Amino acid sequence: MNLLILNPNTSEAMTASIAQAARAVASAGTTITAVQPAFGPRSIEGHYDETIAAAGVAETVRLHGAGMDAVVIACFGDPGLDAAREALEVPVLGVAEAAFHAASFVATGFSVVTTMTRTCVTAEHLLQRYGLASRCRGVHGTDIPVLALEDGGAACVDLIEAAAREALARDRSGAIVLGCAGMAGLCATLSARLGVPVIDGVAAAVRFAEALAGLGLRTSKQGDYARPLPKQYVGWAAPLGW
Amino acid sequence: MNLLILNPNTSEAMTASIAQAARAVASAGTTITAVQPAFGPRSIEGHYDETIAAAGVAETVRLHGAGMDAVVIACFGDPGLDAAREALEVPVLGVAEAAFHAASFVATGFSVVTTMTRTCVTAEHLLQRYGLASRCRGVHGTDIPVLALEDGGAACVDLIEAAAREALARDRSGAIVLGCAGMAGLCATLSARLGVPVIDGVAAAVRFAEALAGLGLRTSKQGDYARPLPKQYVGWAAPLGW
Amino acid sequence: MNLLILNPNTSEAMTASIAQAARAVASAGTTITAVQPAFGPRSIEGHYDETIAAAGVAETVRLHGAGMDAVVIACFGDPGLDAAREALEVPVLGVAEAAFHAASFVATGFSVVTTMTRTCVTAEHLLQRYGLASRCRGVHGTDIPVLALEDGGAACVDLIEAAAREALARDRSGAIVLGCAGMAGLCATLSARLGVPVIDGVAAAVRFAEALAGLGLRTSKQGDYARPLPKQYVGWAAPLGW
Amino acid sequence: MNLLILNPNTSEAMTASIAQAARAVASAGTTITAVQPAFGPRSIEGHYDETIAAAGVAETVRLHGAGMDAVVIACFGDPGLDAAREALEVPVLGVAEAAFHAASFVATGFSVVTTMTRTCVTAEHLLQRYGLASRCRGVHGTDIPVLALEDGGAACVDLIEAAAREALARDRSGAIVLGCAGMAGLCATLSARLGVPVIDGVAAAVRFAEALAGLGLRTSKQGDYARPLPKQYVGWAAPLGW
Amino acid sequence: MNLLILNPNTSEAMTASIAQAARAVASAGTTITAVQPAFGPRSIEGHYDETIAAAGVAETVRLHGAGMDAVVIACFGDPGLDAAREALEVPVLGVAEAAFHAASFVATGFSVVTTMTRTCVTAEHLLQRYGLASRCRGVHGTDIPVLALEDGGAACVDLIEAAAREALARDRSGAIVLGCAGMAGLCATLSARLGVPVIDGVAAAVRFAEALAGLGLRTSKQGDYARPLPKQYVGWAAPLGW
Amino acid sequence: MNLLILNPNTSEAMTASIAQAARAVASAGTTITAVQPAFGPRSIEGHYDETIAAAGVAETVRLHGAGMDAVVIACFGDPGLDAAREALEVPVLGVAEAAFHAASFVATGFSVVTTMTRTCVTAEHLLQRYGLASRCRGVHGTDIPVLALEDGGAACVDLIEAAAREALARDRSGAIVLGCAGMAGLCATLSARLGVPVIDGVAAAVRFAEALAGLGLRTSKQGDYARPLPKQYVGWAAPLGW
Repeated sequence: MNLLILNPNTSEAMTASIAQAARAVASAGTTITAVQPAFGPRSIEGHYDETIAAAGVAETVRLHGAGMDAVVIACFGDPGLDAAREALEVPVLGVAEAAFHAASFVATGFSVVTTMTRTCVTAEHLLQRYGLASRCRGVHGTDIPVLALEDGGAACVDLIEAAAREALARDRSGAIVLGCAGMAGLCATLSARLGVPVIDGVAAAVRFAEALAGLGLRTSKQGDYARPLPKQYVGWAAPLGW
Repeated sequence: MNLLILNPNTSEAMTASIAQAARAVASAGTTITAVQPAFGPRSIEGHYDETIAAAGVAETVRLHGAGMDAVVIACFGDPGLDAAREALEVPVLGVAEAAFHAASFVATGFSVVTTMTRTCVTAEHLLQRYGLASRCRGVHGTDIPVLALEDGGAACVDLIEAAAREALARDRSGAIVLGCAGMAGLCATLSARLGVPVIDGVAAAVRFAEALAGLGLRTSKQGDYARPLPKQYVGWAAPLGW
Repeated sequence: MNLLILNPNTSEAMTASIAQAARAVASAGTTITAVQPAFGPRSIEGHYDETIAAAGVAETVRLHGAGMDAVVIACFGDPGLDAAREALEVPVLGVAEAAFHAASFVATGFSVVTTMTRTCVTAEHLLQRYGLASRCRGVHGTDIPVLALEDGGAACVDLIEAAAREALARDRSGAIVLGCAGMAGLCATLSARLGVPVIDGVAAAVRFAEALAGLGLRTSKQGDYARPLPKQYVGWAAPLGW
Repeated sequence: MNLLILNPNTSEAMTASIAQAARAVASAGTTITAVQPAFGPRSIEGHYDETIAAAGVAETVRLHGAGMDAVVIACFGDPGLDAAREALEVPVLGVAEAAFHAASFVATGFSVVTTMTRTCVTAEHLLQRYGLASRCRGVHGTDIPVLALEDGGAACVDLIEAAAREALARDRSGAIVLGCAGMAGLCATLSARLGVPVIDGVAAAVRFAEALAGLGLRTSKQGDYARPLPKQYVGWAAPLGW
Repeated sequence: MNLLILNPNTSEAMTASIAQAARAVASAGTTITAVQPAFGPRSIEGHYDETIAAAGVAETVRLHGAGMDAVVIACFGDPGLDAAREALEVPVLGVAEAAFHAASFVATGFSVVTTMTRTCVTAEHLLQRYGLASRCRGVHGTDIPVLALEDGGAACVDLIEAAAREALARDRSGAIVLGCAGMAGLCATLSARLGVPVIDGVAAAVRFAEALAGLGLRTSKQGDYARPLPKQYVGWAAPLGW
Repeated sequence: MNLLILNPNTSEAMTASIAQAARAVASAGTTITAVQPAFGPRSIEGHYDETIAAAGVAETVRLHGAGMDAVVIACFGDPGLDAAREALEVPVLGVAEAAFHAASFVATGFSVVTTMTRTCVTAEHLLQRYGLASRCRGVHGTDIPVLALEDGGAACVDLIEAAAREALARDRSGAIVLGCAGMAGLCATLSARLGVPVIDGVAAAVRFAEALAGLGLRTSKQGDYARPLPKQYVGWAAPLGW
């Protein structure tokens, strides 16, 4: 199957590292294509960044969505998820969404360890939207900048490990969700150190996308994910009209 | 005070009619400036439209937000609200948000009557986000296209009135929230016909924006609405970097 | 417009100070009338006090409600709010209600700092009733007696500031709601010291009352706020029959 | 044990009929004293009535509460419940509260059939407050005036039976809660006709009050039900100060 | 009345001590029969234990349920409660359920102090199921093994008292629910020491069972507690077919 | 990978048909082993049946769980799920759980169409437990006996199709979850007829189990899914002690 991994920010290095993480976990027979928007922020660390990035996701699924069997949006805020689902017929998954669902299968309660504290509210809003707020026992910021993860130094791992340990104890949680697509490369290390399930959303989304595609499930076109209505778009967005 | 009314779609006619509705209800001493994004869909009737429109809102508050005392986002999905709050220090209100809050002051339960049935889920998600889901007793679509409201013919009014009457009876509601900024002009007529409070979000947002500005309240810059972090943006969005 | 500020307790000093706070924030053209019940407790610091005070509110709106364009109930428990809404056709606002709504417009989450710890549950019940419990990240008592606020000494302010700082940090909140009408006079000082939005319910209720009246919105008379049914009352309450 | 049944309205006929219903279900060894406030409405059919009646409850527990082992507030809105709990050390139960809890023991979901439709919201607010909203599958008004129940004619019973049958079917419920203390006398008849548990709050409250007293449980004086603080009351309420 | 107390574990010592606790609180005229399953774990400290014990409850109500007026399931996880309700027509109560309801009558918020921390989630799931999660302010493990309670030494009591004190302060609670049927014998001591209502579920369930039976209420046979459908069972469960 | 499909009822025919459905959807490289308990009901249509079946699941995972890479419990009530997770280290999935999660990826809201109306409450309880209640817009019974599905006649399909069509329209849903493992064979037909995603839990669970195993995720052994404590079991359950 053809799986599109869409990095919503415009850091090529992060696109490459997400693609690598995705390929590492993909089944044989899954071809990964990784792209990023032509415009927008180099990293996503707040509502403003995310809003522009969501438009980048929307544009990109129009340009690169054709011929794909499933799409993964690889930023922990799941920007543009509803737009992509509306625009496409194949399954579309966000990495936060996939991680929350995966954690729900292996623990009665999980904690999220993310980057900037200011983005905790984004995870909380997603949990509320997806219905899984009652399964999450805490969202914790580490205040590591997203782009610092690109270097992935030992200090980063230690910081995240410490935050995860405290979360497990304080929240009475059984699993850790890594709250940033840029943490994908640290998942194995953290899992080994912590001794509990550590969930990277990119990996979870890749495998769940394969599962949904394998089931022949497609995004419902009845109701609120029905194809966009015919409409004129203007400005740089003119080609996006339906 | 200077109040910016931001129509997130690119229909100039709708911008004009929203501006007119806003000026009709604004206090003496409030100067209304109405703008629309330079790009995006002519009307917003789904997730895809809304995602592009939200980016338009984000760009527009950068260009037109300076010198304003408050901002109103005049589309019932409140696109780009969090981004605008993050980008600005003055109060920013969405018209759905304002309408839900206003209805909560005059009835124990209200119903929403909106345009396309497919957009009901957007209102439901906002109600959940704002915490007011328990105050709303039903969201009802009429399947009137947004742009048909520009003509505002008698048939439109009758259709909305009928849906509102059914909602009041079936939902045991005491008030009606009009679920589209384009319905602003119909509010007085519907209110007179229905004999219950009918709330137009544009009007509510204008008056609440005046109230918040009058109170000297500004968007919190502590925590998740803190100013965006310095960051490179690329493509058409390059000027949006912080 | 004529705005009735109803202090539900029987402390004339507090009525005067609430009236002063209200006049300080009211728009030009708003005439403030401040009253208090003829019976009941000198301050409200528990359920018993509040229940008697609510009856005082109910009686007072019958005696003083005529000719008013809006009514504000100026005690943080919002006693008698539903009764007043049922008895009147103009908008009626509670100060807790107004403060919670105002905070919701300027922060994704807020904390309440109130007087006696034993009254925290009242704020929690109101938040649940109004639907805004998910927006409030914590309710904190300072155990300052309500009447001690009349003196408003520096010690009071310091105590409240300290509680607010701890609340902001511990709750990850962006704004503070002052949980007592008697704190109205301290709002500006606390706002300056804390650097986040600090919301006094009296001020918020005055401005929102003006907003609702300006919108022409009135309490719904359809359903559960319909006028009281004709009925004999006995004892001191005999004049309250409908 | 000595059990005080407090009818919050001022209809002596209803006090008598509630007392009769209470004595019919009380255990041997339970002495029932039935009282009513000296002031207030003859029946309670809305928020205004209820607010005055709650003050009557508060006054009455001061005058008649001493020497009692438990108190039951016999109006389906549970007016003054928190005040009475604060004022007393013995258990205090509301009949709505008791009925909801009883229904929760014999069915996974129940429906409420009440008098005036306008009072449905009161039941809904209580269910939300008590936490049992998820156990109630519907609240239904019959628009029978409370005082019409005093005659208890066959037409009343038929009307309530019909509403209950529809509720059971439409709500997929297993039990019916009678939403008015004045329906106590109809419980056996309705139970026989409907073939499902029909719960009268007066009976449930009497038996649960006996149970709590038998367990030696008393209202917590730690926290929000602690004794009222010493305080001056004025006007007719002067004797109520602590 | 005949009351069956069913200890879901297979410790005869615990059955005896639960029976003693039940008899100590039962009304004159109530005959207590205490039984335990013929199979299953000696104590219940996790999901696996509980699942087998629930089957033991289901079998036992078939063998011992006849002729009883009410049944109490005396393990804090309420194992087999729905099965027993389906199988019988008389009221069936779980001790956790009874304790949560009892606490709700005497405090606005309560805390649970239980045995193994790993079983906290069971209490949380029950609170969610029963709808009373909003009334519980915290569930706390002491990591005392269930069978250590049989000795009931002073160390146990001290440990539970300390956990309860911390819970009352940290959770702002007014009452303590003992989270294990094996703690029944410690209730009076803890109550005296803590000065707040301390609720033992066995006692609460006995008295509530008497109350429900006294009211003539029986488990609803309409809907989801209807009698099991005729069906072949095989293996050791063959006699359990309907 | 080795995947154990556990049919909790004792119908061999249903075990075979579930195995067939599982193999039809499993990836190449997945070996399906299908088992059923040695005791219990031939079909599960209520709480009593389910409670015995859950013990069957618990016993069976002890006997057949070793050497498996994942386990699926193939009955829509997910009986014994927590016990199996506690007993094993590999991922364990329930088919209801898997179906609800799958539906959440392809529609904003879904409806469940199940067999006996009396089992709707089981689905509702699971949705509440899993946190996905807000994603489900309705649970509908068809009153088809579970074993009638074994014949899978055209009448069955028509009945389910009709119920699904009504659910989609009335609930404003975008997808249908089939509420019985015995409906697995009808999924393709119903999907083709209805034109929306139709989710069979058996298929979803198989694919999600492969996904979780592929991710290297295992059930958390920290906290409430930790291995059962060493303990004596008696009676037929004696071999189940730890």
